[in-house]
Amino acid sequence: MSTPTSTATSCPTDALGGPLGDPPAVPGTAGPGYLVRSEIAEQPAVAERILTTATAAGSEVTRLAALIREAAPRAVLLTARGTSDHAALYAKYLIEVALGLPCGLSSTSTLTVYDAAPDLRGVLWISISQSGGSPDLVESTAVARRAGAMTLAVTNDPASPLALAAEHHLDVHAGPELAVAATKSYTAQLLTLWLLVTSWCGGDLAPASAVPGWLAQAVDAPDVGEVAARYRFVDRVVLTARGYSYPTAREGALKLMETSYLSAQAFSAADLMHGPLAMVDADRPVIAVVAQGRGGEAVAPVLEALRERGADMCAVAPAGVAEDATVRLGLPSGMAEDLAPVVQIVPLQRLVLEMAVARGLDPDAPRGLRKVTETW
Amino acid sequence: MSTPTSTATSCPTDALGGPLGDPPAVPGTAGPGYLVRSEIAEQPAVAERILTTATAAGSEVTRLAALIREAAPRAVLLTARGTSDHAALYAKYLIEVALGLPCGLSSTSTLTVYDAAPDLRGVLWISISQSGGSPDLVESTAVARRAGAMTLAVTNDPASPLALAAEHHLDVHAGPELAVAATKSYTAQLLTLWLLVTSWCGGDLAPASAVPGWLAQAVDAPDVGEVAARYRFVDRVVLTARGYSYPTAREGALKLMETSYLSAQAFSAADLMHGPLAMVDADRPVIAVVAQGRGGEAVAPVLEALRERGADMCAVAPAGVAEDATVRLGLPSGMAEDLAPVVQIVPLQRLVLEMAVARGLDPDAPRGLRKVTETW
Repeated sequence: MSTPTSTATSCPTDALGGPLGDPPAVPGTAGPGYLVRSEIAEQPAVAERILTTATAAGSEVTRLAALIREAAPRAVLLTARGTSDHAALYAKYLIEVALGLPCGLSSTSTLTVYDAAPDLRGVLWISISQSGGSPDLVESTAVARRAGAMTLAVTNDPASPLALAAEHHLDVHAGPELAVAATKSYTAQLLTLWLLVTSWCGGDLAPASAVPGWLAQAVDAPDVGEVAARYRFVDRVVLTARGYSYPTAREGALKLMETSYLSAQAFSAADLMHGPLAMVDADRPVIAVVAQGRGGEAVAPVLEALRERGADMCAVAPAGVAEDATVRLGLPSGMAEDLAPVVQIVPLQRLVLEMAVARGLDPDAPRGLRKVTETW
Repeated sequence: MSTPTSTATSCPTDALGGPLGDPPAVPGTAGPGYLVRSEIAEQPAVAERILTTATAAGSEVTRLAALIREAAPRAVLLTARGTSDHAALYAKYLIEVALGLPCGLSSTSTLTVYDAAPDLRGVLWISISQSGGSPDLVESTAVARRAGAMTLAVTNDPASPLALAAEHHLDVHAGPELAVAATKSYTAQLLTLWLLVTSWCGGDLAPASAVPGWLAQAVDAPDVGEVAARYRFVDRVVLTARGYSYPTAREGALKLMETSYLSAQAFSAADLMHGPLAMVDADRPVIAVVAQGRGGEAVAPVLEALRERGADMCAVAPAGVAEDATVRLGLPSGMAEDLAPVVQIVPLQRLVLEMAVARGLDPDAPRGLRKVTETW
């Protein structure tokens, strides 16, 4: 099978294809959203592959986690753009909570535009990118490595420039992703980062074994058509969440922007209260991603404030959580809060797909975008 | 004079009042936007006061900078919300470029919701807040202090809970800020943080002496009415910038959200290319903040991509920069790029004020907001 983009990976091509079969060689030949739909459906299989690989004896994840533990970094910097930036934010929460290390998302331009000369000895630098191709990530990672950081690239392509620029590489094993809008590579990044951080802090990897089943439930859950129809003519939407689930809100917003061209804005529930709340009214739907656990509980007073403002609310949540929302996108119950983001994005991916198609757009090939974005 | 909010500071009240005189005791009694207009006009005087205080012998800024230099932190964490979060982002750029230290914006919930037990010995923790009153900032700063961090609160109220929770305090000397929408406290934060970081890295404070003059030029610049009229019926807007100027775009967007209830979205020019670009078309104006210097130069290819998409562009820039924009909000020429953000926000503050008033809204008291936001 040919790969029409530059995202070819070393993953065996026979691992490809979901319930809808192999993607076509030329994007778009099977109707709008065909690629995104296939790649959404592939996610349980991708998660299964990641887990099988990671839990095998002497796996890459285990080996890298041991190296990092031995290096005992004084701080962690994460660098990424777009969808991968939301995976980086997820990793930041994991690292801060599980390891208590100072952690930051890097401002790439300080290295690539302003030529800062940092001293990054003792720092773990993690670059995350599906393609591993964006020049600014490659350059900033090379600078970080020269500045003494332990550099790790997490990509979907071990032969990519980013994978080669970093000292270490971790493959997310998503298989070639052909749609411009990333789906399976995102959940693959999250699961891979969870496994890395949990292994690094000596935690138990067993809870992740439930992920493929949860993903399958989310992929096969009842149609999202009711919510998609409700939002057919919406042009502005606010997404909110707290803690581990906040990256889900960010990623959902980005998908809505890039495929349906909506003004979709994501705020942590706390940040929403510091200003943006003023713009919420009955004409601007709010999508709230609410997990079972402390982060979900911390969102409750904010949802109350939103209801007081007359907000029309869609809950992305398991049954029994945020029950008075106007509409819902369901999720499996009983997911551990730190693992839930791997699954939470799926109903939003499905919603985004249906909304774009209903608007006559093709989420496989949004206007003005390419699969590998070149920024400096 | 009584201070009707909880933002009373130790700043002498006779330092208050701009060209429009003292603000009224009860907000709103002098017409919509009276307080914001007064506080915008006060900014040159506030900057003058900050500089006089900071450059006096044995100043707080110099003393704290020496303490930090001696402590030689291994990493810096910044924590803030709303407008102050944009000041934190500005400080992050300054610290990364001038000091080369790993630096991050903290995810407050990891400490206040998930009870992470970090080891922050050797870390400098800077909390930034106008009021110093938000409970989650107070709590996370207290946790950081117990976890061994050197804690510094940067507030407009030395008697605030946040100032008391931190080991060290730096007053931004903005004087009482009565409008809910922050203006003078923001530029006061930026200038104070510039002085702190520059003093910390042994740099020359002299370039800042030009700031009050630049601010006066920006306050007295020609009316922003043409742009405000053009945007009278806009409901979605994108702001973009790169590097030091990116916090300006973020702060401008927040002001538009909280006072005119627009869907205003800010992206670093690089992040814009990784997805959100797709939503830009001729019906969604783009406000580009473009400085003289490397960050401004790095924006150029993105502005070109936006023009190719037919974007209607407003440049917030000095003459001679981003010359083919549709409309402009001018700025003084020759500002150092790292100091420019202290001034760049002023035309946007003025635009936001005029837009809100033209829409029949009162930027002094946006719906649903209070001056001190309580989040946990």
